Amino acid sequence: MAQEPREQSRLDAVIALAQHRGFVFPSGDIYGGTRSAWDYGPLGVELKENIKRQWWNTFVRGRRDMVGLDSAIILPTAVWEASGHVKVFSDPLTESLVTHKRYRADHLFEQYEAEHGHPPVNGLDDIPDPEHPKKIGQWSPIRQMSGMMKTYLGVVDDETGLHYLRPETAQGIFTDFAAVLQTSRKKPPFGIGQIGKAFRNEITPGNFIFRTREFEQMEIEFFVKPGDDEEWQQTWMDLCWAWFTDLGIDPENIRFFEHPKEKLSHYSKRTVDIEYKFEFTGSEWGELMGVANRTDYDLKTHSETSGKDLSYFDQTTGERYIPYVIEPSFGLTRALMAFLVDAYDEEEVPNAKGGTDKRVVLHLDPRLAPVTVAVLPLSRNEALSPLARQVADDLAGEWNIEFDDAQAIGRRYRRFDEIGTPFCVTVDFDSLEDAAVTVRDRDTMKQERVPIAELHAHLAGRLRRA
Amino acid sequence: MAQEPREQSRLDAVIALAQHRGFVFPSGDIYGGTRSAWDYGPLGVELKENIKRQWWNTFVRGRRDMVGLDSAIILPTAVWEASGHVKVFSDPLTESLVTHKRYRADHLFEQYEAEHGHPPVNGLDDIPDPEHPKKIGQWSPIRQMSGMMKTYLGVVDDETGLHYLRPETAQGIFTDFAAVLQTSRKKPPFGIGQIGKAFRNEITPGNFIFRTREFEQMEIEFFVKPGDDEEWQQTWMDLCWAWFTDLGIDPENIRFFEHPKEKLSHYSKRTVDIEYKFEFTGSEWGELMGVANRTDYDLKTHSETSGKDLSYFDQTTGERYIPYVIEPSFGLTRALMAFLVDAYDEEEVPNAKGGTDKRVVLHLDPRLAPVTVAVLPLSRNEALSPLARQVADDLAGEWNIEFDDAQAIGRRYRRFDEIGTPFCVTVDFDSLEDAAVTVRDRDTMKQERVPIAELHAHLAGRLRRA
Repeated sequence: MAQEPREQSRLDAVIALAQHRGFVFPSGDIYGGTRSAWDYGPLGVELKENIKRQWWNTFVRGRRDMVGLDSAIILPTAVWEASGHVKVFSDPLTESLVTHKRYRADHLFEQYEAEHGHPPVNGLDDIPDPEHPKKIGQWSPIRQMSGMMKTYLGVVDDETGLHYLRPETAQGIFTDFAAVLQTSRKKPPFGIGQIGKAFRNEITPGNFIFRTREFEQMEIEFFVKPGDDEEWQQTWMDLCWAWFTDLGIDPENIRFFEHPKEKLSHYSKRTVDIEYKFEFTGSEWGELMGVANRTDYDLKTHSETSGKDLSYFDQTTGERYIPYVIEPSFGLTRALMAFLVDAYDEEEVPNAKGGTDKRVVLHLDPRLAPVTVAVLPLSRNEALSPLARQVADDLAGEWNIEFDDAQAIGRRYRRFDEIGTPFCVTVDFDSLEDAAVTVRDRDTMKQERVPIAELHAHLAGRLRRA
Repeated sequence: MAQEPREQSRLDAVIALAQHRGFVFPSGDIYGGTRSAWDYGPLGVELKENIKRQWWNTFVRGRRDMVGLDSAIILPTAVWEASGHVKVFSDPLTESLVTHKRYRADHLFEQYEAEHGHPPVNGLDDIPDPEHPKKIGQWSPIRQMSGMMKTYLGVVDDETGLHYLRPETAQGIFTDFAAVLQTSRKKPPFGIGQIGKAFRNEITPGNFIFRTREFEQMEIEFFVKPGDDEEWQQTWMDLCWAWFTDLGIDPENIRFFEHPKEKLSHYSKRTVDIEYKFEFTGSEWGELMGVANRTDYDLKTHSETSGKDLSYFDQTTGERYIPYVIEPSFGLTRALMAFLVDAYDEEEVPNAKGGTDKRVVLHLDPRLAPVTVAVLPLSRNEALSPLARQVADDLAGEWNIEFDDAQAIGRRYRRFDEIGTPFCVTVDFDSLEDAAVTVRDRDTMKQERVPIAELHAHLAGRLRRA
């Protein structure tokens, strides 16, 4: 039976644009893909790098109470046994006996509760099969499936070589805590920030780049004196909120979500997420990042297990304590998805024929835009192209510049609107006379004549003010 | 029997400094470590990020014939079967029957040849045991050990879930070649650059961060018309050489090394390395990066195996061909090690008592230095500190700034010399009157008075000129 065609949602439009324009490709696609990860194409990698740079400059370089770290992905089994991950980092798995598709039982329960206003009274016996929504499913018993990915180091595949790929970057920060403390001479309150890959053997990867088995995190572990933890958690919640809104996320599209006490992770005293209104099928909001109060759980456990003392001695007060940890943990690729969705717009703009055209535009903050400046000779021409190339080369290096001389200028403007390029610089025949170019603004579509000699300073000024 | 104390080499001094000052920590150290990887501490991560940024800005953003990519670490088995890695990516392993230590047989042979001027005539039967250098070793038969690291995706650990961690970032570029070509509208000659982690199950990790099981690469696959490949290989060899020397590597300390024909990788027509004079025990030079001519090997194999046509059709000439590939492949962490070793110096400088002191200094290029500017109040003082903090905060974000008010100013200068900080800005009591500060140059140790209002521009200018 053919499916009803349904109206394309805003999210679907963004996903289509992202794949069509080379932001994101399914990984290993020519071999049918892994269904586990996505690759970031020429535009995606620039956008992702810009997000990382903004985060690092704001939270690590920009703060005197923060330092950076880049710890390894593969850590010894002992780390994950101590952290509790080997034992409790798992998801409840059930399988439809009809379709043999696998599901996370907790997700099925949440969806049921969202629809019915109460949890399923009889557990799985109340849950319809997502493939046959009008019938109650037939389900295998729930079993716990570890989210940890294994690998083996050394000569033979046995227990001595068993290592795990990290499911969060945080543990590398905890195991290096003493080394950082000693070499950086920081004192609490201070934090360690890290950006890097993490791996989770998700039962149901999906929703585009939202839930993948290989993903990137931007994490901070912020070490404070016990007792100061609740105030610092609020401070970090506010800082994280401000980071998103400062980079252009509409405050209407994000919200705090307080995790219910009974659902907290094994290490957490309190966790508050920032969620974005992705409008997925079946769930409107999705987690962008979380701020967890991990207490002294991790440092204490690693102290006890490794035998290395991870307490801090405050020389000014003579106190010794194991710091409490506030953890702002961002999903980098989720942030990227939110920036894309939030920036996406379809506008009606007047055309030359007195009617209107649809303009697709990404209103990305200029600091995030994958291409900062497009340099466009008015037409492909032997006189214009060398000058335009020169203009492009003079701007390259610091920003990502694109040179494009294919097709009519109006179509090129649309192409760069669609990928969020804040400035189009057009080199026309007058440029050969007046040594000036036209700078077009993506959002207002207004054009301004700027001398080539002043172009770099002009753009730098507008980027700073943005 | 106690070992003879030996003089500390330059390399040993750099390794000690790197660990002591928080550039690099052994990964998982509090649990005895993995022996497989290193973590990059607060200074190491800044240095590494700066190297990445210089590379990306030079080779990706700075060139109109290049785009970037960030593909996944875990790829399906089919990719690695097609690329030949599952079959031939292995190292010859032998074990000393006396010490039960494992070695790479090819490394033992190379070392023998370096010492004797000819290869061992009787193979392993000529090779002494490295732990007992005066006696011929007793060796197990050589067997091939795969360098690929496995993991399992999905619900059960069986062949259907078997995936590999990439041993090189290159294959993700090849599998995405058609998608990049289509979305970026580039044409050969053009290239795709990528920075990311790779994993190899090395038999003998060692020489500090030189040979590790988890490491980072910066790779370019540059696609050209068959026939143009030899010229492009030379071009890229020159560009790579220039990148290192432009960032301060002494040309006396690098050399090209042409791989002998009979030792080329399975995909290579010609490979030329750039080696750095690390002066390891037993081998003076070590590979920094290589420029390989991979011909059409990879695109052809992936075309045949996947069924996806990876040829290029040139619309202007009507020709269809599978591009040849020139691959400049950099070891990021090896580059970092070379920059550290090359920058390291011990100088005799006059002290206040009319004698001389030893000054340890890293003459890192200012674009690479982990801390760009140190802001130092002359003494810890209620009048100076707020102004100094203000000066530091005004510079933060764009560069990495450190504020330090502990101990005498002379000791602080030495501390920042030792980590390669190009500029120390000192706030003294005159600053409260004249609103100016002293800028000290790391290399010349000369000091200059600069108004605070002009400080940003002054430093920016000197960084640009560097």
